[in-house]
Amino acid sequence: MEYTPVNLKEKLSKFSEHWTPKIVAQMNDYHFKVVKFSGDFVWHRHEDTDEVFIVLDGHMSIRFRDGKVDLSAGELFVVPKGLEHKPFAEKECHIMLVEPAGTINTGNAGGARTAADHVWI
Amino acid sequence: MEYTPVNLKEKLSKFSEHWTPKIVAQMNDYHFKVVKFSGDFVWHRHEDTDEVFIVLDGHMSIRFRDGKVDLSAGELFVVPKGLEHKPFAEKECHIMLVEPAGTINTGNAGGARTAADHVWI
Repeated sequence: MEYTPVNLKEKLSKFSEHWTPKIVAQMNDYHFKVVKFSGDFVWHRHEDTDEVFIVLDGHMSIRFRDGKVDLSAGELFVVPKGLEHKPFAEKECHIMLVEPAGTINTGNAGGARTAADHVWI
Repeated sequence: MEYTPVNLKEKLSKFSEHWTPKIVAQMNDYHFKVVKFSGDFVWHRHEDTDEVFIVLDGHMSIRFRDGKVDLSAGELFVVPKGLEHKPFAEKECHIMLVEPAGTINTGNAGGARTAADHVWI
């Protein structure tokens, strides 16, 4: 049988748009997604789940109502369920997200920045 | 409020033993663990869950009864639930595992290579 790894850089090379997570793997009912951030995202929260950010390349930050966290390549952060947050990146940054299948990028906020769900790359 | 990222290299610098996963983060009821592989592990399977391997540094392979997969830094592989597998690494390799809290490294096999569960670093 043929077993093939997921190469994250190769997956990231296949698209250029920002803030549109693409699924690269599934574990049980969770998705691993790659995404490119640049500039500011919208304030939102995920009512039903924690969300993991793993920085693959570059630098990003997540603003909270009472502080922020700065993340660089090789760093990981878990945004707790229900906590309002606003990701941003001064320069383009490559991230892997881990969250339940069906999690929407804009959470409770919705709006124009909402990405199509269930897009594999 | 103080928000602190998990730096994976810094976590890996805190221990030297092989095949003993250490928890670095929790997302819902899942754990993210870092581990150092060197040499051969035991054949085993996880009856109730998929298991994710993400290579952070080096090279490793996973043998299956009908083939194998080779993984390098920046690559990810999902071992499906119930599939018998045997990780190995010719030289020391640094990995992040993602799996449900309570997953035992030796799965169904047990034995001397079983690591203590729930060890945070």
